[in-house]
Amino acid sequence: MMTNLSAYNNSWFKSKIGASTLKQLVWYFTNVLFFMNPLNPVSGLKVALLKLFGAKIGKGVIIKPGVNIKYPWKLNIGSHCWIGENVWIDNLEWVTIGSHVCISQGAMLLTGNHNYKKSTFDLMIAPIILDDGVWIGAKTVVCPGVTAGEHAVLTVGAVATKNMDAYGIYQGNPAVWMKKRLIG
Amino acid sequence: MMTNLSAYNNSWFKSKIGASTLKQLVWYFTNVLFFMNPLNPVSGLKVALLKLFGAKIGKGVIIKPGVNIKYPWKLNIGSHCWIGENVWIDNLEWVTIGSHVCISQGAMLLTGNHNYKKSTFDLMIAPIILDDGVWIGAKTVVCPGVTAGEHAVLTVGAVATKNMDAYGIYQGNPAVWMKKRLIG
Amino acid sequence: MMTNLSAYNNSWFKSKIGASTLKQLVWYFTNVLFFMNPLNPVSGLKVALLKLFGAKIGKGVIIKPGVNIKYPWKLNIGSHCWIGENVWIDNLEWVTIGSHVCISQGAMLLTGNHNYKKSTFDLMIAPIILDDGVWIGAKTVVCPGVTAGEHAVLTVGAVATKNMDAYGIYQGNPAVWMKKRLIG
Repeated sequence: MMTNLSAYNNSWFKSKIGASTLKQLVWYFTNVLFFMNPLNPVSGLKVALLKLFGAKIGKGVIIKPGVNIKYPWKLNIGSHCWIGENVWIDNLEWVTIGSHVCISQGAMLLTGNHNYKKSTFDLMIAPIILDDGVWIGAKTVVCPGVTAGEHAVLTVGAVATKNMDAYGIYQGNPAVWMKKRLIG
Repeated sequence: MMTNLSAYNNSWFKSKIGASTLKQLVWYFTNVLFFMNPLNPVSGLKVALLKLFGAKIGKGVIIKPGVNIKYPWKLNIGSHCWIGENVWIDNLEWVTIGSHVCISQGAMLLTGNHNYKKSTFDLMIAPIILDDGVWIGAKTVVCPGVTAGEHAVLTVGAVATKNMDAYGIYQGNPAVWMKKRLIG
Repeated sequence: MMTNLSAYNNSWFKSKIGASTLKQLVWYFTNVLFFMNPLNPVSGLKVALLKLFGAKIGKGVIIKPGVNIKYPWKLNIGSHCWIGENVWIDNLEWVTIGSHVCISQGAMLLTGNHNYKKSTFDLMIAPIILDDGVWIGAKTVVCPGVTAGEHAVLTVGAVATKNMDAYGIYQGNPAVWMKKRLIG
């Protein structure tokens, strides 16, 4: 059989977005003007805006310039986390980040997928969970549904397609377990 | 021998661009202001502009924000295709996209190369062809000269350096055939 | 043990940045408005600005639109080099580029790292050196501390985590030596 994108139907998702069309529209331009736009480098203003749009964010969170966030009302960040320059949180579904988590520059968190086994190419979404102390390296991609156990590390440019064990260091595309992270 | 970029000469290419210097200049700023700039999220306007600059585009094509297109006059898109957020079509040479093709967010189509065996580092260009039903995943790269047979899939973050068989699912860097795509 | 980002302390680094807070601030906005901003495609102006902020740059250097440079006062570029579209030079530490070097579009040079073995996640920086004739391919990443010997090639999308031998062609993630580069 063949793909038929004209038969694509994601109306079920629209009721699950969790925000009115107006709220989505206002957030879209807020994201463009204050987050993606590097002319605003002030982290505190961004944290306040995220909270205003429904994100739950702890203390001491730093958000660098150029960040792109899809739906702040589906974002949970603990305390003392860093969201690096040009990080892209494409959270159609919940992204839950613990405390002391570092997401380095250019990383992408991806929660949307398509069912390529269906001719209607149905949208599929799955949450991402990053436990305390996780480090998502620069220019990496975390795929939909991935849970990274506490203090897991995804090294530069790696693509995480599966869950990551606590204190595991993962490298490559697709990412594989390399060694144990020992701290202190 | 050594590379000598001061001897680089791509004047042969300038006559093959297929547009006047003025047209190139006007397109450059149109691309920056209406395509790359996420302040314009209206897909219909972008499709109209692409056609105005010589692209052939079918029905029901959706172009998301942040897209970067080199030469619209070297772009052919069928019907019911999606060009995702921040997709980069670097089409120094023709890019021909069938119908029902999805190019996901952050993907790059690359048509330019350099001959690293020559000290003059000559420019080499090669077209990209994506047949009906192809899915180019998020944050992937498709290299110059690649043809993807119908309904081929390039998974997240993969780098396609060779042709992709119809209904083949490819993963990794460089991308390799993983399994067959079964639909319906 | 666990990561404690609230105990992170990079004050040692602040004294090693090599520029006053004011100079850093002025450069930040210069970078945003004239380098990252594709509305300014004029390479000559960018070279002049880089020199004004302390970069050492040879003759015939071309800087494409969308480039992101951290600290121009820690940047050395020889003659007849090309810095491609959307290249990201994240030079917390020195980046030294020889002559006749091509850094293709979307590549990233990364000089910062964190010590994931310490609960304080200490910042670590290491220089990058690209010798004469090196070609860093599109959408690649060069990791902190990497030296690329003369005429080494990093192919599209590869991630260089170790030094690259002169005239070696490297592919993959992490990048491995594939074959010898023969010129002429």
